[in-house]
Amino acid sequence: MSALHQLVPAPWSFSAGTGELVLDAGTTVGADPELSGARRWLSRALGAATGWDLAPVPPQEAGIRLLLAPALDAEAYRLEVGDAVVISAGGAAGAFYAAQTLLQLMGPAALRQAPVAPAEAWPLPRVRVEDKPRFGYRGTMLDVARHFMPKDNVLRFIEVMAMHKLNVLHLHLTDDQGWRVQINRYPKLTETGAWRRESSLGSWRAGVFDGRPHGGFYTQDDLREIVAFAAERHITVIPEIDVPGHSQAAIAAYPELGAGDGPVEVWTRWGINETVLEVSETSLEFYRNVLDEVVDIFPSPWISLGGDEVPLTQWQASAQAQAKAAALGLDDVSGLHSWFVGQLALHLQSHGRATSVWDEIGDGGLPDGALVASWRGYEGGIDALRKGYDVVMCPEHKLYLDHRQADGDDEPVPVGFVTTLQAVYEFEPLPGVGNEDLPGRLLGAQANIWTEHLDSPRRVQFAAFPRLSAIAEVFWSNPENRDYDEFLNRLSGAHLARLEAMGVEYRPLEGPAPWQKRPGVEGWKRDYDAEQLVRN
Amino acid sequence: MSALHQLVPAPWSFSAGTGELVLDAGTTVGADPELSGARRWLSRALGAATGWDLAPVPPQEAGIRLLLAPALDAEAYRLEVGDAVVISAGGAAGAFYAAQTLLQLMGPAALRQAPVAPAEAWPLPRVRVEDKPRFGYRGTMLDVARHFMPKDNVLRFIEVMAMHKLNVLHLHLTDDQGWRVQINRYPKLTETGAWRRESSLGSWRAGVFDGRPHGGFYTQDDLREIVAFAAERHITVIPEIDVPGHSQAAIAAYPELGAGDGPVEVWTRWGINETVLEVSETSLEFYRNVLDEVVDIFPSPWISLGGDEVPLTQWQASAQAQAKAAALGLDDVSGLHSWFVGQLALHLQSHGRATSVWDEIGDGGLPDGALVASWRGYEGGIDALRKGYDVVMCPEHKLYLDHRQADGDDEPVPVGFVTTLQAVYEFEPLPGVGNEDLPGRLLGAQANIWTEHLDSPRRVQFAAFPRLSAIAEVFWSNPENRDYDEFLNRLSGAHLARLEAMGVEYRPLEGPAPWQKRPGVEGWKRDYDAEQLVRN
Repeated sequence: MSALHQLVPAPWSFSAGTGELVLDAGTTVGADPELSGARRWLSRALGAATGWDLAPVPPQEAGIRLLLAPALDAEAYRLEVGDAVVISAGGAAGAFYAAQTLLQLMGPAALRQAPVAPAEAWPLPRVRVEDKPRFGYRGTMLDVARHFMPKDNVLRFIEVMAMHKLNVLHLHLTDDQGWRVQINRYPKLTETGAWRRESSLGSWRAGVFDGRPHGGFYTQDDLREIVAFAAERHITVIPEIDVPGHSQAAIAAYPELGAGDGPVEVWTRWGINETVLEVSETSLEFYRNVLDEVVDIFPSPWISLGGDEVPLTQWQASAQAQAKAAALGLDDVSGLHSWFVGQLALHLQSHGRATSVWDEIGDGGLPDGALVASWRGYEGGIDALRKGYDVVMCPEHKLYLDHRQADGDDEPVPVGFVTTLQAVYEFEPLPGVGNEDLPGRLLGAQANIWTEHLDSPRRVQFAAFPRLSAIAEVFWSNPENRDYDEFLNRLSGAHLARLEAMGVEYRPLEGPAPWQKRPGVEGWKRDYDAEQLVRN
Repeated sequence: MSALHQLVPAPWSFSAGTGELVLDAGTTVGADPELSGARRWLSRALGAATGWDLAPVPPQEAGIRLLLAPALDAEAYRLEVGDAVVISAGGAAGAFYAAQTLLQLMGPAALRQAPVAPAEAWPLPRVRVEDKPRFGYRGTMLDVARHFMPKDNVLRFIEVMAMHKLNVLHLHLTDDQGWRVQINRYPKLTETGAWRRESSLGSWRAGVFDGRPHGGFYTQDDLREIVAFAAERHITVIPEIDVPGHSQAAIAAYPELGAGDGPVEVWTRWGINETVLEVSETSLEFYRNVLDEVVDIFPSPWISLGGDEVPLTQWQASAQAQAKAAALGLDDVSGLHSWFVGQLALHLQSHGRATSVWDEIGDGGLPDGALVASWRGYEGGIDALRKGYDVVMCPEHKLYLDHRQADGDDEPVPVGFVTTLQAVYEFEPLPGVGNEDLPGRLLGAQANIWTEHLDSPRRVQFAAFPRLSAIAEVFWSNPENRDYDEFLNRLSGAHLARLEAMGVEYRPLEGPAPWQKRPGVEGWKRDYDAEQLVRN
């Protein structure tokens, strides 16, 4: 119903009250039992930033009160700062978002991990905010396969996502260039698959390599920690095990999985790869076993099987693939793609999980109950909605944060379409559909952070922010309450300072700092052409 | 008096009690008011790892009791796990160290930032530990000038230091290759000085450059946050502003500071640099102003002025320097080095701060009350002790963690002396001094992490751990209680799992993982020769 308070409450949401409330070291926090997670998080975050000991007390006696208001939606909240701070929330998530808004109101220092100055008191403006999100799925995809991101940095990334009230982290855990999840049954997936000899430097088209080994992986306990840390912040982690393309790291570890001839190494270059899985009982059995361990780590209702970018070359050249397609009654080997994904989706279904896929799968047939992530523009998603599927929009020409943020040569390794801050702020997930009645559900949208050219957490931060701040607002608020100039004012006036306080090395609005540039490293610029959406 | 419990209590310290104590979600934590900081830290750390809400109550009613025991030293503690956990501490630091030992006893999962499994209860062995450190200064120097380390990673590094009961972080903030501290009066120090065009790849002797800009700096609020975060963990942060050598980044920003002719850029190679500050009222005034801001950020009793590696070439060629030396009544320009440092030390003294210096300064004259960090072997330190100064030992051939951890070519960019885990475990700060009565005070020792070849937090972790774990034990315990084989057992049996839980990518005992290697990048190996201790 109402607009965003992602960044700071819009003026119209302030009450007529004057003056301010002063929080001090004696502040107490009380919560209805169902909201105790939000109280604990708030006490920890506020305790870290202020150095205070925020004692818990029964809700009615507290300086900060978190109360359950069943009339509100689970993610909705009302925040009133009067003689006390009163948070009324539909559920635990709503209370958590209210706590985030409260920290935002206290100024950037409230987002630091230790007090920058010993403060006896912290003033709060008297306000009344009532808010809830537009979409239930507000996602970010992080590619930790192309460049591994150490666990500590993933946890911090989640903390920053939570500040932005995003609630889905899609972790791209496997690809041609690396396998990042420990699988107990198949140790070579990480022994062999978790590292590569070297990497393309810039666009693979330049043919330049860096000569530097790269690798790393998460243990199962690391991933359980990531999942639990995210869950405390109301973020669902969706793991992606990409099949039947983007699988060369797995094939390097277990050559019997491959459709081609002879062994391969973990891929060292970027781009679309002809190496694909063999569609066989051996591969299916292998991946079923992998997924058994994956579902045990990730409680997410969705598990992603990827399914993007599968060249047919190896299957076309393979007698086994031809025979398999014939045996399955398929017209040709192209049908193997969605058949293979479908088999694994059935296995996930037996675990009570739905399958998330990239929209290519829709070219064949979608698994029952699939969630379709529409990246090749809007069409795959709209088509899936027409067929009654759940959809998340993440069109490449709109929401790919590895794409260059400005024209010109200053952007580091400039690839893809120019995707400015303003452009992402103006994103709409269903343009041009009009009043068409679509049987499927549009769950929300997702910004994708591919990391071929983002080789460190610092580079990820540069690519993601502040565009992800704009996107978070788009995912939360209704279009009629958005105005880019007003957003820019709030960004410069308050929000960049919050990012700075959280240690985020965002891209300055005026362009990259000198040390954020990458002179001499070739990118691959594209201009938007709906007919030619090819990943670089 | 007693041995370390850095890693896990030695068996002899266990009481005869049997069975275990079970902590659960209803655990309460109470503390004498002076120990409430330790209670808060413990509640936060334990709350994060377990997901529990550890309510604070008066000390006598708590399941975990932190009590002041004035008979103990400020850093000493007694930890008794019986029907409750009873911590008796001489002061806040002792209580904090007891809290760290308690987490160690709970197993590696207690060191994670979120619960890996929902645990209803957490068993603790019934033990009695009584402990205190051997040295009051247990330091680590981190060079954030050669390679900038983002704030988040510095905070995590501090958390890992705290787990090891280290208590001094010496931050090397300025050097030829970068200036990392925001100085409001001189903005060009970071605008110009905080980044360089490119860097030597491997040893500068190879003449290879990486072509990649590098930079970054901490705002004053970032540093205040780092200081406060460290202080909560009983770690003092000593900032280093290195003069009159290692100053090319400052000279690049403000050319009037230089003794040479013409402008320079922020240095792109490693090694000893002939570019030095001009010894003039201009330079002194500039650095006095810089130090005014530095002392305002850092409450540390010591501020380091560096003072290492100052070639005389530019001063010898300078009429101004010759004249200045003559005017000061010095024999020659070599005396300008300690005179300049002495002038700034006087300024620090006027702020009530002592000066920390590298031992070269002792070749001229040491400032009153100086703390001497002895890096060129032991001699500088022993000489300073004979003269009555405070000393911290950090001999290059023993405690430099950028030096290679094994012989052979597998170590990434192998530089310096082979410095094995066993060698650092066998470090003694005052070998061969016998019973000589030294009027100075040996405050402790320090491991130095120079980062010419450590270009990311991951590389710093590889270089530092597990050697820093061994060193922490050496700084804490008495030699008669140390046995390398027994240490190795505890390391493999328990402590490496703790490092892993904290996200530390240590060097495996059997050698670097494939992705931790740097084939083709030239190092510069040295063999130990006391006569030829030259930095690479």
